[in-house]
Amino acid sequence: MARAPEVPLSHARESRDAILRELAEFVGIPSVSKGPADGPQVAEAAAWLAERLRALSAERVEILPTAGHPIVYGELTAAAAAAPTVLVYGHYDVQSAAPLEDWESEPFEAVVRGDHMYGRGVSDNKGQIMACLCAIEAVVRTDRIPVNVKFMFEGEEEIGSVHLEGFLRQHRERLACDFVLNPDVGLLGPDRPTIYHGLRGMYLSKLRVAGPTRDLHSGGYGGIVHNPIHALSALIAGMHDPQGRVTLPGFYEKVLPLSAEDRAEMAALPRGEASYLEQSGAPELWGEPEYIPAEREAARPALDIIHIQGGSAKAAIPVDAHALVSVRLVPNQTPDEVHDQLLRYLESRAPSTITWEILDWSGFPASLTDRNAPSAQALARAMETVWGRKPVFYRSGGSIAAVGQLQTVLGVDSLLTGFSLPDDRIHGPNERLHLPTWDRGVQTLIHFLYELAGDASA
Amino acid sequence: MARAPEVPLSHARESRDAILRELAEFVGIPSVSKGPADGPQVAEAAAWLAERLRALSAERVEILPTAGHPIVYGELTAAAAAAPTVLVYGHYDVQSAAPLEDWESEPFEAVVRGDHMYGRGVSDNKGQIMACLCAIEAVVRTDRIPVNVKFMFEGEEEIGSVHLEGFLRQHRERLACDFVLNPDVGLLGPDRPTIYHGLRGMYLSKLRVAGPTRDLHSGGYGGIVHNPIHALSALIAGMHDPQGRVTLPGFYEKVLPLSAEDRAEMAALPRGEASYLEQSGAPELWGEPEYIPAEREAARPALDIIHIQGGSAKAAIPVDAHALVSVRLVPNQTPDEVHDQLLRYLESRAPSTITWEILDWSGFPASLTDRNAPSAQALARAMETVWGRKPVFYRSGGSIAAVGQLQTVLGVDSLLTGFSLPDDRIHGPNERLHLPTWDRGVQTLIHFLYELAGDASA
Repeated sequence: MARAPEVPLSHARESRDAILRELAEFVGIPSVSKGPADGPQVAEAAAWLAERLRALSAERVEILPTAGHPIVYGELTAAAAAAPTVLVYGHYDVQSAAPLEDWESEPFEAVVRGDHMYGRGVSDNKGQIMACLCAIEAVVRTDRIPVNVKFMFEGEEEIGSVHLEGFLRQHRERLACDFVLNPDVGLLGPDRPTIYHGLRGMYLSKLRVAGPTRDLHSGGYGGIVHNPIHALSALIAGMHDPQGRVTLPGFYEKVLPLSAEDRAEMAALPRGEASYLEQSGAPELWGEPEYIPAEREAARPALDIIHIQGGSAKAAIPVDAHALVSVRLVPNQTPDEVHDQLLRYLESRAPSTITWEILDWSGFPASLTDRNAPSAQALARAMETVWGRKPVFYRSGGSIAAVGQLQTVLGVDSLLTGFSLPDDRIHGPNERLHLPTWDRGVQTLIHFLYELAGDASA
Repeated sequence: MARAPEVPLSHARESRDAILRELAEFVGIPSVSKGPADGPQVAEAAAWLAERLRALSAERVEILPTAGHPIVYGELTAAAAAAPTVLVYGHYDVQSAAPLEDWESEPFEAVVRGDHMYGRGVSDNKGQIMACLCAIEAVVRTDRIPVNVKFMFEGEEEIGSVHLEGFLRQHRERLACDFVLNPDVGLLGPDRPTIYHGLRGMYLSKLRVAGPTRDLHSGGYGGIVHNPIHALSALIAGMHDPQGRVTLPGFYEKVLPLSAEDRAEMAALPRGEASYLEQSGAPELWGEPEYIPAEREAARPALDIIHIQGGSAKAAIPVDAHALVSVRLVPNQTPDEVHDQLLRYLESRAPSTITWEILDWSGFPASLTDRNAPSAQALARAMETVWGRKPVFYRSGGSIAAVGQLQTVLGVDSLLTGFSLPDDRIHGPNERLHLPTWDRGVQTLIHFLYELAGDASA
């Protein structure tokens, strides 16, 4: 065992209130990455974070430009030359606070009520960044840091990390590391320490169906010209069979099958049908009947139209109708292949009474990491030390662009964790952070740093 | 024959330029009926029109209130007690001028360029009202008017005549008449005098499909919860068979079949497939293969989703999705029966994984009038006098709420005509009025008044 000494653990407990005041200050900078008028506040958050890294004695601290919002970089060097290098990823941008009227306190004025701190970004992701800094600072102030640490904090996670991949290519050498620590997911519950070892990937595109060259009076042309809304609806309807399976040609061909071990583990998760029903409020569940919901979330691909729009209240057959097609990918699907499958589906199904096109497609693959990797095992031991129980290894249905990009460009896996909870209301009004869980998280991260070094020297 | 004397015809020609200047003044009042801030301009247009009726020596001129915009009333009494009574309908409200940047001149500053006057409302409907006033004034100034005339000009036609029916019930006696002259349609072409003898009716409702009680992260719930956008799309897709027939149960059961005479007449219209293709710009035509497009427009019902909306660019399965269901009705369908058919369709097709409801439904039946009625024959003779050819009797695919309401409440048919042209761009930018056609229209209306009286005294 490589448990942390008591000194840094105490230091973290003692500096906790000061760090939470700093978190409130950080939350006070409304660094919403969406929208054209966001530049100054986002830049202010980057500057604040760079200053905070310098205060931590980080070296080579820089605010590195991208074509979008900048990336904050810094590093700390371990004493031992053989020490592993961890790249700490985080994002200092936040979602918009709209609708403002639903907040019980000002979104950009963090306040503590009971066991929670409230404010936009307290959980996603500023509070997680501050947990990492609190833990690392506790070690740096009281000991020699046992591993090399690099920090990389981006400002565009909430808008799809659109400039991260180019940045990674440009700074490949500087960013070289053994693995990435990404605290942008969370725990399944306050007593359920959790390590994510899988994420679904993403394919996203816009489908446009067009018919007449101008909006047509529905009295003059109803029953005579194919309404693009009808044609788009039929194309969407045909994308699933009655059991909820996706009908794109070849869609499931390369999907990695679930092993018996996977299935046993997913059946044991605290996420049964009742839990999905209660959390969603849907009248019934839906989807591939051969798989339980936890399997469908983690290991089966899903196609969702997340937006549809056509026409207006005017009595007209519109020129066109649009849909955003989102596909959650699983190993071994690729965005390119799914794009081709969608094209082939449309080619075979679209009637000649309309035209169609696919615009603005993008995507990244799913990820699945080795739960026996030294970093994952080090984190598991650290969690067990703090919680007194082994963590759950969890495959999530969500998607994080940065994870795929780091894998593709740097060839490194991301260790996905974080100390947010499912009811933190991230992206919604009254976002909050459960402080007792955050405290445990800081302690865990300190143990983790020593576990990593212990592992490396073992 | 009861051709008009030369004196009023000459008077109309001589006063033409002055009347067009008045039309420009009328167009200058931006009486857009849509939206909350429209009150003053709409009321100003009503006041202008009441003043114009008084200048015409109309009696009992009043601006009568409704729950919405007011209705302008006035009357003229014929010398002969047995003279028929015509109620002249029109609307002084106009559509919004948006998008303003597409206008070549100011929408509310009417200008003459070549053979056209340009401005919002010059054709729909202010120019048509002024044609009626020009014709009637020419008779009143030079002769005793041969028929009783009542004027009823509403201010809410462009928003569905939402308060007209209540007004008709309240003023039933005052409005008693033999028929209504409604100049709110037009000619099929400048050399094609046209009388409309049929209109489609309307059924309109909002279909809401709902699933989860909050927007769900599409990573966490994709493939697990039925997306309301998918369910709504499938319901819409199922509303037509592959040939374009509507599948609502019993939808076609009561539809009045086309007679051989109807079919011959529609086949002879200057509206073949090529015309619909060219006017619409659609890649192909679509709809019931057993009927030619002109038949489908005039005499076959059509169901169109005129608006669909669900979700957003956020990666979420939305709480709900909405569609506006519009059905153009033909004789002998009723809105109530179509509403029931839609409910039965949804009851039999909607899956239990979602819920649905129909909101805000409304409608009015189709109309089909007797082309041999004395008023229609009088107008036909007047048109033949001016154009030198018999008019086309035309059944339109469009719908006018006022026509159904006047039939239901007052029990009178509407004689549908007007001197607008298909390329007048009503409701769009650069709306215009073809002045040579308008001149012919004024002459036609003068002949019509004498033809009516001749008929009555015959």
